[in-house]
Amino acid sequence: MAAHALTSSAKRRLDPDRRSRIIDAALDVIAENGVAGTTHRRVAAEADVPLGSMTYHFHSMDELLCEAFTRFAEDGSARFSRAMAAARTREEARAAVVELINGTADSGTHRDLVLTHELYTRAAREPAFRQITRDWMARDRATFEAHFDPATSRLLNALIEGLTLHQALDTQPGDPALAEDAVDRILGSR
Amino acid sequence: MAAHALTSSAKRRLDPDRRSRIIDAALDVIAENGVAGTTHRRVAAEADVPLGSMTYHFHSMDELLCEAFTRFAEDGSARFSRAMAAARTREEARAAVVELINGTADSGTHRDLVLTHELYTRAAREPAFRQITRDWMARDRATFEAHFDPATSRLLNALIEGLTLHQALDTQPGDPALAEDAVDRILGSR
Repeated sequence: MAAHALTSSAKRRLDPDRRSRIIDAALDVIAENGVAGTTHRRVAAEADVPLGSMTYHFHSMDELLCEAFTRFAEDGSARFSRAMAAARTREEARAAVVELINGTADSGTHRDLVLTHELYTRAAREPAFRQITRDWMARDRATFEAHFDPATSRLLNALIEGLTLHQALDTQPGDPALAEDAVDRILGSR
Repeated sequence: MAAHALTSSAKRRLDPDRRSRIIDAALDVIAENGVAGTTHRRVAAEADVPLGSMTYHFHSMDELLCEAFTRFAEDGSARFSRAMAAARTREEARAAVVELINGTADSGTHRDLVLTHELYTRAAREPAFRQITRDWMARDRATFEAHFDPATSRLLNALIEGLTLHQALDTQPGDPALAEDAVDRILGSR
């Protein structure tokens, strides 16, 4: 029996991860070509699936973009969560935040930086995508609230954003001592 | 004598602001269509100039994008500079920074937000554009250094970026008291 003669549910059983693979492929295509250059055809080629399975799994390009950016944002939150998980004391939490800022600046991949800005640009243009950024910020604040009060957690999150963004947009490497100074000021422990 | 028979310098005398008008038009087109959707044809139509004058004034789309984003960044720095110019005391400078954060959140136009992210996305992809963001940050730091020490100025600039970005990417309005709390922590005056 030829593959195209299978029922939809049978196809799904043969390739259960296809939908998820398309979402990962979409992120690769966005990183390479930008949202504006992301087409069903390019994503299908990247995921190595027939073009027809794109419309089977996703009603629209917006649905695919939304799921792709949601996965990207959830991966970002998971990284923050892992970084803070081992901290038992306020001092350990402070050190973990400093490490998070300097670690992002050092090892944050070019791909992550580009995808972050592609998401922010989309959210600036389309309010529907602001739900993704809103949820991302809320998860990260909750991660910090295991260690700090809500206002401090919100400010730490904004500070991390601003510092890592400015380091990424600079032409020279940042000063690791700056992150420590910044976190101490926000924590009021200078 | 028909206009097309004029020498180039004569044309320039007839429309001395044409180059500048093209740069403004480019920003409008980027805001509307994104960098990816910005073409010579669209910018010429927006500036109301013949298509041929695009290549006369700009060697490449990258040169036009670079000049447009440079103008946008310089306008952004001028806004910070005006906001801080009237402050005579540290307390007035503190109030001006708080006002700058809350004012950007309130009145920062959708156009400014979109253009900022279009520039950051471009700078994330193309190191050549990072000179524009680097210079922008340096000018803003210098503005703050008239009132605060260099480390404080750098942190204030990063904090403003993070706070205004997070407010813009949220689905709910920010709390004006948050900016005051944030600035006081960075200034160590809590």
